[in-house]
Amino acid sequence: MRDVAVIGIGMTKWGELWEKSLRDIYVETALLAIDDAGVDHIDSMYVGSMSSGIFVGQEHIASLLADYLGCAPVPSTRVETACASGGLALRLGFMEVASGMSDIVLVSGVEKMTDVGGDKATYALGTAADQEYECYHGITFPGLYALMAVAHMNKYGTTREQLAEVAVKNHRNGSKNPLAQFPFEVTVEDVINSVKIADPLRILDCSPITDGAAAAIICPVEMAKKLNKPVVKVIGSGHATDAIAISQRKDMTWLEATYRAGKSAYEMAQKKPKDIDVFEVHDCFTIAELCVMEALGIVEKGKSGEAVEKGRTAIDGDMPVNPSGGLKSKGHPVRATGIAQAVEIVKQLSGESEERQVKGARIGLTQNMGGSGASTVVHIFEKE
Amino acid sequence: MRDVAVIGIGMTKWGELWEKSLRDIYVETALLAIDDAGVDHIDSMYVGSMSSGIFVGQEHIASLLADYLGCAPVPSTRVETACASGGLALRLGFMEVASGMSDIVLVSGVEKMTDVGGDKATYALGTAADQEYECYHGITFPGLYALMAVAHMNKYGTTREQLAEVAVKNHRNGSKNPLAQFPFEVTVEDVINSVKIADPLRILDCSPITDGAAAAIICPVEMAKKLNKPVVKVIGSGHATDAIAISQRKDMTWLEATYRAGKSAYEMAQKKPKDIDVFEVHDCFTIAELCVMEALGIVEKGKSGEAVEKGRTAIDGDMPVNPSGGLKSKGHPVRATGIAQAVEIVKQLSGESEERQVKGARIGLTQNMGGSGASTVVHIFEKE
Repeated sequence: MRDVAVIGIGMTKWGELWEKSLRDIYVETALLAIDDAGVDHIDSMYVGSMSSGIFVGQEHIASLLADYLGCAPVPSTRVETACASGGLALRLGFMEVASGMSDIVLVSGVEKMTDVGGDKATYALGTAADQEYECYHGITFPGLYALMAVAHMNKYGTTREQLAEVAVKNHRNGSKNPLAQFPFEVTVEDVINSVKIADPLRILDCSPITDGAAAAIICPVEMAKKLNKPVVKVIGSGHATDAIAISQRKDMTWLEATYRAGKSAYEMAQKKPKDIDVFEVHDCFTIAELCVMEALGIVEKGKSGEAVEKGRTAIDGDMPVNPSGGLKSKGHPVRATGIAQAVEIVKQLSGESEERQVKGARIGLTQNMGGSGASTVVHIFEKE
Repeated sequence: MRDVAVIGIGMTKWGELWEKSLRDIYVETALLAIDDAGVDHIDSMYVGSMSSGIFVGQEHIASLLADYLGCAPVPSTRVETACASGGLALRLGFMEVASGMSDIVLVSGVEKMTDVGGDKATYALGTAADQEYECYHGITFPGLYALMAVAHMNKYGTTREQLAEVAVKNHRNGSKNPLAQFPFEVTVEDVINSVKIADPLRILDCSPITDGAAAAIICPVEMAKKLNKPVVKVIGSGHATDAIAISQRKDMTWLEATYRAGKSAYEMAQKKPKDIDVFEVHDCFTIAELCVMEALGIVEKGKSGEAVEKGRTAIDGDMPVNPSGGLKSKGHPVRATGIAQAVEIVKQLSGESEERQVKGARIGLTQNMGGSGASTVVHIFEKE
């Protein structure tokens, strides 16, 4: 297998982009990545996508977007594993370059969520839960994560304030990210007093509905060096699955797929959690960030709430998590999220994150998960 | 890159399977392939899928099906490129094994189409056309292929009877396939006098709405030899895209993505069309089989109707096409089709196709396409 590098990244301002269609948002972002890489063609492309059939009535988007980007007839593949679709697109592109099948691959994700009303968006997102064992009984994602939050509070004594501290930190980071959907700060009181969604989760515990895209160009390391590009290598890739329905898991507070995907990525990269300088993880709800930290081995089981409260995961902490603002403040166009995490890590390792820069970051990790954690993709990056 | 072999196949009876759910159909079929391969585990799996969100309200099916198959936490990936999703699952599995990332990979497709009414099925299938430039104006797939048929008739003098001959041949072949949805023969008169769908296409020119699944296990050739399995190698893989909207193509009778994907596969396999002993191609409508034959270089442009009429594509012809019965008679559970084509070719090359066996077949080709041809995946197989 060949070594793989990221040589170009692209991301545009996220939010409620009512004046742009899915194809507009995609092309604008993909061209930024192509320009950044300075390549004159691509050999293949991957598009992470969750539920474009329900959101915009359009499947077959891999071919559609290849055509609109002016890249047809290149092979173009849509992959889906709920909200981890972006991370999965990166993993498959990595595999294609590593195998020698292709040299220059565009990996990307795009989502247009605001063309449908709130009810339909909730339904579309709900298709990532178990229709027969979960949705049929009326539960949706805020409810599933609320169950996980209650279980974590009961088992480990995690507090309502500690959950809020995740949102406070991520909004503080996001306020320094010009591309974030909600670039403003919030306080613990703001979070705790915001509208109740599913007890104990309030609206400021939840990531938003977002339109947006993100893209990256990857190629063999040898080629990156010839192009005189700064080399950020992809040194580890892991992907794992778990039961979709949380009732089928032994412990609702434990994300087995994140643990397994992390283990695969750490092994491939020959790194340990303590070797990682900066993390971008899937904080679709505040409780998610806590469970992920434990499953990735950043902190011991049950100690995540305390770590956040003490500021250890802040940009200047000893284990910075989500300097981009995370899904919470940056936004969460579901299938673009995994690629946007990689975009942030590449910026961090290249020293280009300006006000939210983690000093001296050389090794970074992304964790992108689907549903209530039934699929997870982890990547580890290193600056040469 | 490592050489790759198919060591196990699975397919169950296709049709209107109202008493089985998507997960039931899938698990039953995947277990057949695993049993056939005689392996005790899999390292990774791919599920081809078109629009499960609309058909059964369930996305995230890669994790769901891994769990129901008892294989979680293995990495499980859903890929989609409309009706070519099955072929694409095979291609990505091929890439994963060839790269050395994994050894034993399950590639599969499943579709449950009859849980929704005809209108919703037509809508779901329509999401593979261009929503903004085609569907918005009221056209659906029978109409798009009817336009291609009229163009072919006008340009090359292809006759209504020649189109019917495609259905007659495929139903004759399908009558010998116990797993086919419609295993009976039809006559040219039956086809021409059947209900009109979109002039000149009649209902017997169209593939049906089907529930069904298909699965295969692939591994490195060296491993297949150690397992004492008959070795059917995957020697070529091609994938290409084109404009989704047929109005954006230079020639409505020419399938550029099929031509390009075929070219890539022929080059990788170092074979020419005349080296192929048996073809399984995407006859979603009778006109499709004709256009595909021309784009794959089996016959010259405009000569496909004549070739079918003369019996050259029959099982005992000099270029047998769709001995399985094709999508027309065997059925077309959209995302399972590409894998079912591979299942048939493996059977043919292993001499296990009984009454529909192409004598002495050693090299076979599958062509699986999405929408009105905007994505195509081609594979070439060889018996050692």
